[in-house]
Amino acid sequence: MSSVPRDEVDPALRHVHIVGTGLIGTSIGLGLRARGVFVTLEDPSPTALAMARDLGAGDPTPLDPQEQPGPSLVVVAAPPDVAASVVLNQLRRWSAAVVTDVASVKAAVLDALERAGCGSSELARYVGSHPMAGRERSGAIGARSDLFEGRPWVICAAPRTDLGARRATETLARTLEAVVRRMAAEDHDAAVAAVSHVPQVASSLVASRLRELPADSVSLAGQGLRDVTRIAASEPVLWTQILAGNAAAVREVLEELATDVAVVLDALRALEHDPDAAVGARAMLARVIADGNAGYVRIPGKHGGGPTRYAVVQVLIPDSPGELARLFNAVGAGGVNIEDLQIEHEYGRLAGIAELTVLPQAADALRALLREQGWTVYD
Amino acid sequence: MSSVPRDEVDPALRHVHIVGTGLIGTSIGLGLRARGVFVTLEDPSPTALAMARDLGAGDPTPLDPQEQPGPSLVVVAAPPDVAASVVLNQLRRWSAAVVTDVASVKAAVLDALERAGCGSSELARYVGSHPMAGRERSGAIGARSDLFEGRPWVICAAPRTDLGARRATETLARTLEAVVRRMAAEDHDAAVAAVSHVPQVASSLVASRLRELPADSVSLAGQGLRDVTRIAASEPVLWTQILAGNAAAVREVLEELATDVAVVLDALRALEHDPDAAVGARAMLARVIADGNAGYVRIPGKHGGGPTRYAVVQVLIPDSPGELARLFNAVGAGGVNIEDLQIEHEYGRLAGIAELTVLPQAADALRALLREQGWTVYD
Repeated sequence: MSSVPRDEVDPALRHVHIVGTGLIGTSIGLGLRARGVFVTLEDPSPTALAMARDLGAGDPTPLDPQEQPGPSLVVVAAPPDVAASVVLNQLRRWSAAVVTDVASVKAAVLDALERAGCGSSELARYVGSHPMAGRERSGAIGARSDLFEGRPWVICAAPRTDLGARRATETLARTLEAVVRRMAAEDHDAAVAAVSHVPQVASSLVASRLRELPADSVSLAGQGLRDVTRIAASEPVLWTQILAGNAAAVREVLEELATDVAVVLDALRALEHDPDAAVGARAMLARVIADGNAGYVRIPGKHGGGPTRYAVVQVLIPDSPGELARLFNAVGAGGVNIEDLQIEHEYGRLAGIAELTVLPQAADALRALLREQGWTVYD
Repeated sequence: MSSVPRDEVDPALRHVHIVGTGLIGTSIGLGLRARGVFVTLEDPSPTALAMARDLGAGDPTPLDPQEQPGPSLVVVAAPPDVAASVVLNQLRRWSAAVVTDVASVKAAVLDALERAGCGSSELARYVGSHPMAGRERSGAIGARSDLFEGRPWVICAAPRTDLGARRATETLARTLEAVVRRMAAEDHDAAVAAVSHVPQVASSLVASRLRELPADSVSLAGQGLRDVTRIAASEPVLWTQILAGNAAAVREVLEELATDVAVVLDALRALEHDPDAAVGARAMLARVIADGNAGYVRIPGKHGGGPTRYAVVQVLIPDSPGELARLFNAVGAGGVNIEDLQIEHEYGRLAGIAELTVLPQAADALRALLREQGWTVYD
């Protein structure tokens, strides 16, 4: 399946044993098998195990605990509620293995391990991690070998964690072409509370409002609602475990959101009472939307043109062949550097409009230059 | 531009005058011009007016109020705050014209008209409407002639509305190939509060939480967060007007959401206090997610397989040519009706998995039939 010779695989991945063949576990298996790693599988559900095997994620033959040396790395991909007990079980079964879990809550797993009496030499071989990757659908059926490529893989080594154990987990992540991110467990949990868990709660609550709405009214739904409620199709059992496992951090973020909701409600009540006099109320609503803008632009990735650092020059492009090339020539001859270009165009329409993103100080000169050459440029 | 002879245009659309050449107004102009309708344009911003003209949305030459008969239909596509005053102005300027507005709040416009002393013969010529269409970007630049095709266009005729006025507005909507939906203004406002306005607020509040997050933490963002916050890039000025114009209805829906947030917070606090004993708390969290599921499936459109009304049979498809055809033949020969088919497949993987959606009563027979023929079928 892969052309990588077995002796080129990092020793830390000599034998990777995956416990739990859902979406993440099976994807890890697929990714490792594609790179020539020896992978064995385990799952309490015969169906899930069979599917993972059939997809090529690894060998489901039960391992013999007597047979040494055993796996070099165990990946526990079990639901958050049972992750800690499975980790402990695997730490005790394989006295030399590094054990990592991929649950989306980290401090809770560590706490549960300590409460269960995990010894310090066992704890030293445990590294909590969290590959930040996923798909709308769960289960082995959605597994992909490239699921983690370019995605963050958070590694939460504790101070007592053995250096070799941490290195092995990072090797796993890098082999699957993920981006290793080292974080303390508490910082991870606070981060996912804001970027994943509270968004889930918000999505579910917005969708929940549609239950009692007349069908006619729901049918007015547009793209905005669909975007906000896409993750409202998530699984109650899994998400209860995630939210329960990160209760403190989620509670903190959700409290802030609740405070904002109260502010919006006050503003709306003031406007209900007197639409014309409630100036402060309008300012408050505007601030809420503007704060949302400010949060939105912090999300990495294209947002469609730099909002504050650039200027945009809009030029009419007649719908004839060669007009775009003519525009590029004019701009190039003028020596102006274009940071980005977007064209709004529709077949059969008279024309399109090109948006040239430039440094603010270059915008006026560009407009003048293009107008001199007969282009229609908007202010 | 269009091959429709002028005498085939409905008399109600003899001359359509559009006031406000933003996204909606310009798109209406483009759609009507493409169908041979005579369209004139008006906008306080010379730039917006010029752009709409250049795109082919209509003629911006100022109209002479003395010149009869004047437009047959006036479309007011101004921001919600000024819609009512523009409507009144147009009703008084053209004594025979039907006037409609496209603001996303309807009762507020009607109320403002009545408060401004709009006479009953004037009111009879006014029909509030709301084309439920849009794009992430606003302004004439994003306008498309096909923006409304297949989308709902809500028409809120009041009891006193002249029948001809209502008919003219419905003709406008149908000409642009929208789906006419007749609703009372209050019902419309309640509906958009739930399917549009509260989702906007929720999205902004979720995005707002990212402002103080360390950059490292925000970079863990995944698709779920991006989906929930996509509309958090919306414009504060416009949305303040919309929320203020629909304050009562939005307040009602948002109060319900606030109640749910409080329930989630109580559950989280109980779990923080005692993760093992708080069984009721977990049940509450599960219910919140499940309620979100229930609301989500009410949104029209493909959700990827019927959740409750069908059964899904999963079959392994080896990655060799002709296997899919072989499967179809087996299913067809067995006489089982397939409602839907989805295939999870990845290049270079051993195999894919086909998901056949069938009526629940047919599932077991289909599994047996396929297994008899050597297919790997999962339970």
